[in-house]
Amino acid sequence: MQTNEQLLTAIENYLAQCESPTEPERLYAPITYSMVGGGKRLRPMLVLLACGLYTDDIRPALPAAAAVETFHNFTLLHDDIMDHAAVRRGKPSVFAKWGQNAAILSGDAMLICAYRLLTQSPEAQLPELLKVFNEMALQVCEGQQYDMDFESKPKVSVVEYMHMIELKTSVLLAGSTVIGALLGGAPEEDRRKLRRFATELGLAFQLQDDLLDSYGDERLGKAIGGDILEGKKTYLMITAMSHADEPDREVLRSTAKNPKLTDAEKIAAVKAVYDRYDIPRLTEQQISVRFDRALALLDTLTTDPQRVRQLKEFSKSLMGRKK
Amino acid sequence: MQTNEQLLTAIENYLAQCESPTEPERLYAPITYSMVGGGKRLRPMLVLLACGLYTDDIRPALPAAAAVETFHNFTLLHDDIMDHAAVRRGKPSVFAKWGQNAAILSGDAMLICAYRLLTQSPEAQLPELLKVFNEMALQVCEGQQYDMDFESKPKVSVVEYMHMIELKTSVLLAGSTVIGALLGGAPEEDRRKLRRFATELGLAFQLQDDLLDSYGDERLGKAIGGDILEGKKTYLMITAMSHADEPDREVLRSTAKNPKLTDAEKIAAVKAVYDRYDIPRLTEQQISVRFDRALALLDTLTTDPQRVRQLKEFSKSLMGRKK
Repeated sequence: MQTNEQLLTAIENYLAQCESPTEPERLYAPITYSMVGGGKRLRPMLVLLACGLYTDDIRPALPAAAAVETFHNFTLLHDDIMDHAAVRRGKPSVFAKWGQNAAILSGDAMLICAYRLLTQSPEAQLPELLKVFNEMALQVCEGQQYDMDFESKPKVSVVEYMHMIELKTSVLLAGSTVIGALLGGAPEEDRRKLRRFATELGLAFQLQDDLLDSYGDERLGKAIGGDILEGKKTYLMITAMSHADEPDREVLRSTAKNPKLTDAEKIAAVKAVYDRYDIPRLTEQQISVRFDRALALLDTLTTDPQRVRQLKEFSKSLMGRKK
Repeated sequence: MQTNEQLLTAIENYLAQCESPTEPERLYAPITYSMVGGGKRLRPMLVLLACGLYTDDIRPALPAAAAVETFHNFTLLHDDIMDHAAVRRGKPSVFAKWGQNAAILSGDAMLICAYRLLTQSPEAQLPELLKVFNEMALQVCEGQQYDMDFESKPKVSVVEYMHMIELKTSVLLAGSTVIGALLGGAPEEDRRKLRRFATELGLAFQLQDDLLDSYGDERLGKAIGGDILEGKKTYLMITAMSHADEPDREVLRSTAKNPKLTDAEKIAAVKAVYDRYDIPRLTEQQISVRFDRALALLDTLTTDPQRVRQLKEFSKSLMGRKK
């Protein structure tokens, strides 16, 4: 068994040796730029950790790990065009740096590169891996479309919101975990459980992201209230809308666009409504339910509990939890 | 052996039964819109004709045929965003009809759908098919990038132009043909020859497209001179630039942007230079050399000449030639 640090190093080394051609420069430079020094490598870690539940030799899972990371970065690249986002991970986005057309086309090439990496997986598992990957990839697109649809939709229900974040966030974590399990030789029943584990983990993770955006987290040092200022339909906003009386609902609807308020006043006004209806605690509760369900599923796997512990610890650290 | 009409019907029937989900509507409606009633199905026809060189049962090649057609339509969808093209095949483009973000995202989903179709090919050939498909897809992106780069590049050589159209046009025809041959069970040497055949055919086809845009074709009923009015760097323009003296080169460089000239005058001025340097005949010659080379390669295949004849006839009809 390898430590998380060893697994992360294996991912970085594998990604570094995937040489990309250099010409045409405007096609390939944005791909290298996106892949280098980016993010937590959460999805490839899930591939390797899930594979490691069933075998010590995680090398056959490295191409698939690189594939899901490449796919993830492709989605960010195209999402940034759609959102006109100028910054990604503290650097100019590809969209801002190279322009829209280069961002579209190098995103396309990146998606193809993800498939090319996946194709380097062991041939025996390739058809099954592809099926999982294709469905996952398509569902992520569906999630992004629903997310865009919601911006102009007057009312979004909690059920609709949970479905959207399941597609947009959980599906990729679940696909990564199932792909790793497949490559490790997991029995079908375990793969089904691992899919549910990663789905719940993804939901917990996304809800926590929503909560932290408004209530902060000293570890992140992130500006608080971005979602509120954008008037974004987060879990907090949607839950508050469904609990609040009409005057408070009007505050939730109109504050972000109110030109008479400062940013700090907007954030304070919306959070006052959230607090009045106990939204932070309700969200915490939902996060805990999802996260506990995820961990409990891991206890039902057929593999060695010692191996399971590593995935559990990783999940906890992802959620910023000690125990 | 099946007739071309039977093969075309098989393609249309297969595409029609590939059911796409309907929700989210803005993701999937553009895909159906792009795939229905579009184009000559040239690429899937090449898949089936190449497969048919080696076997009567072309059914195992249908998913791959649908995959290359889907991929081709994906490239058109994203190209139209990059070119701001409002019309495609006489209808509003997806970009014009649904807007840019929907066009980006449904294009992405279409590329994934192409892979999903390919994954339905016989498992034994899947790894090899994927390798061919991945390289092909990436090279098409490279071709599109070079094409965009050339717009702002002051001087493009004939060699650079031929390389670009090989990537942008020939590679997809060559990939389709090789994929069909693989699925038909062609020996490796034949596959190599078929790749060269389709590459030359694609170059002849693209050069003819360039020629017809300026010199017309009564069969197409297409407006003449579009490339000249756009100041596009076509084979004719690039060849003329390399043959003409400086005053004529200046005509070629400046006519499209000259606000004092009517469209008809612009077209006449540029064509006068083309004619002075015999560019149409030089282009015809280049087309013939490529096309004859393509057909000659077919004569060296190891399969039944009767089967080869069908692919030859198809190639001729593609080029609008009787014999």
